[in-house]
Amino acid sequence: MSKFLDDRFQSLEEYVPGEQPKDTVYTKLNTNESPYPPGPATIKAVCGQKGAEDLRLYSDPDSTALKDAIAKRYEVKRQNVFVSNGSDDILNFAFMAFAQNGAVFPEISYGFYEVFAALHHVKYEKIPLIQGFNINPENYWHKNKLIVIANPNAPTGRTISQKSISDIAMSNPESVVLIDEAYIDFGGSTAAAQTKIYKNLLVVQTFSKSRSLAGARLGFAIGSRELIGDLEKIKYSTNPYNVNRITAAAGVAALSEDDYYQANCKKIMRTREQTVVALEKLGFEVIHSMANFIFVRSEDIDGEELYEKLKEKKILIRHFDNPAIKQYNRITIGTPEEMEILLAAVGELMSAADSGEE
Amino acid sequence: MSKFLDDRFQSLEEYVPGEQPKDTVYTKLNTNESPYPPGPATIKAVCGQKGAEDLRLYSDPDSTALKDAIAKRYEVKRQNVFVSNGSDDILNFAFMAFAQNGAVFPEISYGFYEVFAALHHVKYEKIPLIQGFNINPENYWHKNKLIVIANPNAPTGRTISQKSISDIAMSNPESVVLIDEAYIDFGGSTAAAQTKIYKNLLVVQTFSKSRSLAGARLGFAIGSRELIGDLEKIKYSTNPYNVNRITAAAGVAALSEDDYYQANCKKIMRTREQTVVALEKLGFEVIHSMANFIFVRSEDIDGEELYEKLKEKKILIRHFDNPAIKQYNRITIGTPEEMEILLAAVGELMSAADSGEE
Repeated sequence: MSKFLDDRFQSLEEYVPGEQPKDTVYTKLNTNESPYPPGPATIKAVCGQKGAEDLRLYSDPDSTALKDAIAKRYEVKRQNVFVSNGSDDILNFAFMAFAQNGAVFPEISYGFYEVFAALHHVKYEKIPLIQGFNINPENYWHKNKLIVIANPNAPTGRTISQKSISDIAMSNPESVVLIDEAYIDFGGSTAAAQTKIYKNLLVVQTFSKSRSLAGARLGFAIGSRELIGDLEKIKYSTNPYNVNRITAAAGVAALSEDDYYQANCKKIMRTREQTVVALEKLGFEVIHSMANFIFVRSEDIDGEELYEKLKEKKILIRHFDNPAIKQYNRITIGTPEEMEILLAAVGELMSAADSGEE
Repeated sequence: MSKFLDDRFQSLEEYVPGEQPKDTVYTKLNTNESPYPPGPATIKAVCGQKGAEDLRLYSDPDSTALKDAIAKRYEVKRQNVFVSNGSDDILNFAFMAFAQNGAVFPEISYGFYEVFAALHHVKYEKIPLIQGFNINPENYWHKNKLIVIANPNAPTGRTISQKSISDIAMSNPESVVLIDEAYIDFGGSTAAAQTKIYKNLLVVQTFSKSRSLAGARLGFAIGSRELIGDLEKIKYSTNPYNVNRITAAAGVAALSEDDYYQANCKKIMRTREQTVVALEKLGFEVIHSMANFIFVRSEDIDGEELYEKLKEKKILIRHFDNPAIKQYNRITIGTPEEMEILLAAVGELMSAADSGEE
């Protein structure tokens, strides 16, 4: 740390992303990426010679074409759409802009919420989950602070209902209710339509998971014209050209081949259910997930040990140090072949544990 | 504006970027883009099928390969390099992180500095330019606030010397001195080497101008390990994967064909000098510029009128409302052909003005 850093940030603990190995020897099930490549139209949009040549020109700061494509897909208007360099950008802006009275989010959820709150010196309340790692929606009523809920939640994969979301939005008329739908396309249903009813409801999504574009960095928000206008104000005060030309083109193309991505989501959901059955057979407790990952533990092996042993076998899964969940691991759903590699390795470890070799 | 926006931002006036027409009918000399496309290696890096397929994976949050390429080019170490989604991102972080005691920048300069300061509620002092739109370096001594100087300055194109920079860095030991070198490759000399001597010196550059990648969004900073560490802390608390995979690959490729870009810079400098001569013949006062733009006025035509009349002729230049410079326009140096179009149009306007047709 330099002596020049603002006092406010000196004790800031930044977010630690999942490991991103530079080599590709790992079966990589740790950061919830899609195991399937972007679709042919998306790849064509990225690889176009004209698009590459036009990189000499700034991107459209209004991202009109991209916003229109998103608006069409989610049946809202352009003015109800905000786009950004990944959805983290939007979460950051929301904690900056809408948390004057504080923020509320689940105790176990995306670890970044706490970092954003600390960065912007927002007072926050973390609400414990209830049995089965579920969110009790009533716990978020009448807070009138920025409410942030991941639906499905991470790393648990548990969802809340559309009715729960409208109840929360209705009971917090003086604050923004942000639903982080990063994993919505793997079995959940989006609250995008509800933003037409609740002016304080902001739905945030990403192209990183279901649309196979984690490396392109593209997130978006849907909400009332006023909320979107506020986000635009922050954007135009920090980084007006925040979405680059290639990513914008990829986003438009991805929305043009929605069927391809929806088919991938179905494949991943099928693989998820097969993996759940197989892990349960191996004695694991698996939280029922509506995301592209599962959250698992076994009484026969320590959580961190499982993570370490699999890493030795060149398989990466995600382990969290949080004491409340340290017996668990989050496993991204890959291809069926990748899950077979995982299951074989886990099977070996469990037999070794059974036979007392450990 | 929504009723939810934090009071702190309600009076915030965001930055207004230059016009980015969606069609391409304009001769576009308003936002200092390069008139030349990215080089063949850069285009190849963008258009690679493998790179497009790998977009399903997150980018490297440490941007190791890109940092190494920049470090090699500027003869520093990886730990002295920070990369970001455009250089505006870095300026934003610097105003957030290093301006606890306030900020100082020239009264006429990149308009965004004032927006960043307002956004982060930083108290700032704007120092008037001296004759000929020059910066008097002594005016920045002993401030011990965040000093931000564009070198060359915009929209004036005027430079300060390396000695001036070291004097400013030396006389402000308790604060960061940020040199914004967005336009350094058109005749100036970088202060990158001086960051090895002055731990408070931060040099910021961009791939948007001399490297023809405005639409890819890539900026970088060079400074002491401690300063770079502070920027990393902010990055990991806002958007760890801030540089996307394609842009990172384009950046590495661009540095591998530095000769191509340097040759373009030379072409642009030659075109600049030819344009200066031609405009002076037409009666314009032209500020001597070391950037890829020139700042001009004529006593025979009002600044805003020139801008408007050229726009009618489908030529975009940049006009600023600031009363101190409203008689001037900033004109990006394009290809020789584009400048001929400009000069012909300006010639017509001046003849019309002469003959009293206006």
